[in-house]
Amino acid sequence: PGWSLGSDPDHLVRTFKFGDFAAAQDFAVRVGGVCEAEGHHADINYGWGYCTVKFWTHKIRGLHENDFVMAAKVNGLADT
Amino acid sequence: PGWSLGSDPDHLVRTFKFGDFAAAQDFAVRVGGVCEAEGHHADINYGWGYCTVKFWTHKIRGLHENDFVMAAKVNGLADT
Repeated sequence: PGWSLGSDPDHLVRTFKFGDFAAAQDFAVRVGGVCEAEGHHADINYGWGYCTVKFWTHKIRGLHENDFVMAAKVNGLADT
Repeated sequence: PGWSLGSDPDHLVRTFKFGDFAAAQDFAVRVGGVCEAEGHHADINYGWGYCTVKFWTHKIRGLHENDFVMAAKVNGLADT
């Protein structure tokens, strides 16, 4: 939940909000840690108060079940 | 050097290339450290092998001398 579908290529995207820059960066790094652990890498965009995460599967330039699994894992980070 | 001018709003932007995801994320965090230290925050976008940094001054929705100073500092990080 909370993710949108984007296109060109098809991807999952969600923006998380934070109270400052440091919290957004900390979240980005935690997302990056999950990406490294799973061997499936997001596109991460952050700045003051926000972090936007995108997942897609480069090999097929589109969405694969793994992208949905990753999105769920990132939601789990946001809840903690 | 290495930065381009973008618009809407006017901003400075440069993409740095890396050999993997971890190196790109490490660079992003170092850029974030400089932003926190200077109280001038970038928009940072990274993923496997790249980190794109944008600076502009939100208050004026455009470029200020500080943005050029920050760009130079980020170049300094990339050289080390």
